Amino acid sequence: MERTIPEHQPTIILNPIRSWKNATEPFTEHQESTRQVYDGVLLNAWKDAVKMPDGKTAIREYLRHPGAALVLPVFNNGDILLIGQYRYAARRAFLELPAGKLDTGELPETTAMRELEEEAGITCKHLEKIGILYPCIGYSDEIIHIYTGWGISETGQNPDEDEFLARFRVPFTDAVNMVDSDEINDAKTVIALLRGHRWWQKNGPFPIT
Amino acid sequence: MERTIPEHQPTIILNPIRSWKNATEPFTEHQESTRQVYDGVLLNAWKDAVKMPDGKTAIREYLRHPGAALVLPVFNNGDILLIGQYRYAARRAFLELPAGKLDTGELPETTAMRELEEEAGITCKHLEKIGILYPCIGYSDEIIHIYTGWGISETGQNPDEDEFLARFRVPFTDAVNMVDSDEINDAKTVIALLRGHRWWQKNGPFPIT
Repeated sequence: MERTIPEHQPTIILNPIRSWKNATEPFTEHQESTRQVYDGVLLNAWKDAVKMPDGKTAIREYLRHPGAALVLPVFNNGDILLIGQYRYAARRAFLELPAGKLDTGELPETTAMRELEEEAGITCKHLEKIGILYPCIGYSDEIIHIYTGWGISETGQNPDEDEFLARFRVPFTDAVNMVDSDEINDAKTVIALLRGHRWWQKNGPFPIT
Repeated sequence: MERTIPEHQPTIILNPIRSWKNATEPFTEHQESTRQVYDGVLLNAWKDAVKMPDGKTAIREYLRHPGAALVLPVFNNGDILLIGQYRYAARRAFLELPAGKLDTGELPETTAMRELEEEAGITCKHLEKIGILYPCIGYSDEIIHIYTGWGISETGQNPDEDEFLARFRVPFTDAVNMVDSDEINDAKTVIALLRGHRWWQKNGPFPIT
């Protein structure tokens, strides 16, 4: 098939990485039309026509999501807490860090504290933001805000009516090893554990195990 | 509101982590009915009724996805290659590793090699699987197969008609630092870089920078 590569399409690797924002700016796609194609209980899907860098039109389907927050809770002895939960979409259970969707107008740190109490049955005195992540940029605008918490105390779980959860306390390093061995493979949890491990080694207020 | 916590809902942290599969097995949800609620170009959404562990019925909405493969390409001098791409769902550009969806019946390693050539304009002599990840278990069954490749040679890019990409070559450690600083925050890319960095430090056939 005959292909026309636009002029801005580089064929050799030239760009210094620090210029990546300028280099990708010409690739911006502009909305020509938008319409909601599914308005569900959980899922909200949209289908837009966009103008591509070469002037042609393409179709983009995606989900709109309110965003979410997640907490890596670290006990005084360096243990962390994981949640075991069945996830119907993937038809299996996963080990996850406590996390949940932002309610309307809710600050991410409020969501983080709320989910920590509801799902994990604990609270924390100190909460610090590690960063953000985009779980699926191909088809969702979801952003997850990543926190770590310490100064943990027990409150007792209070999960949502349709949530069934188990809680596991485990040395931080064991959890990281379970990422290496693929036993923990939920994206948000993997990122919070690996970025969190690097953060704690550098900035942590006390040693981790 | 009055809440009934099922008997299997633990209120204290007891379980040894190695028992997590057994401990979460009672939380399995069983399909009562299923129907496709959106059949799009890219998105396929389903809405199922499921029987929860307490016998009650809940609604689960989710996407079905064919799966994807991703490659972390490592040059002989320890540099890696990143793609700069605009992602309309999130209305911004991201730095990503070469990746793409599995075609029907395609092996993940075939997808990985194909995307490496199409998106990055390179091939690799050696391809090794690092693991898998689930980007959004809350609403998608997508699995991403993570590979690393070495023995790189140039072929020239051949992206899809609606893909506009920039390529950046960068020392491995610089990319990992850009994860720490939140400049790289696409989930699949973050995981492949951090798991890949640990894999290369332990198993890599040559030193990384």
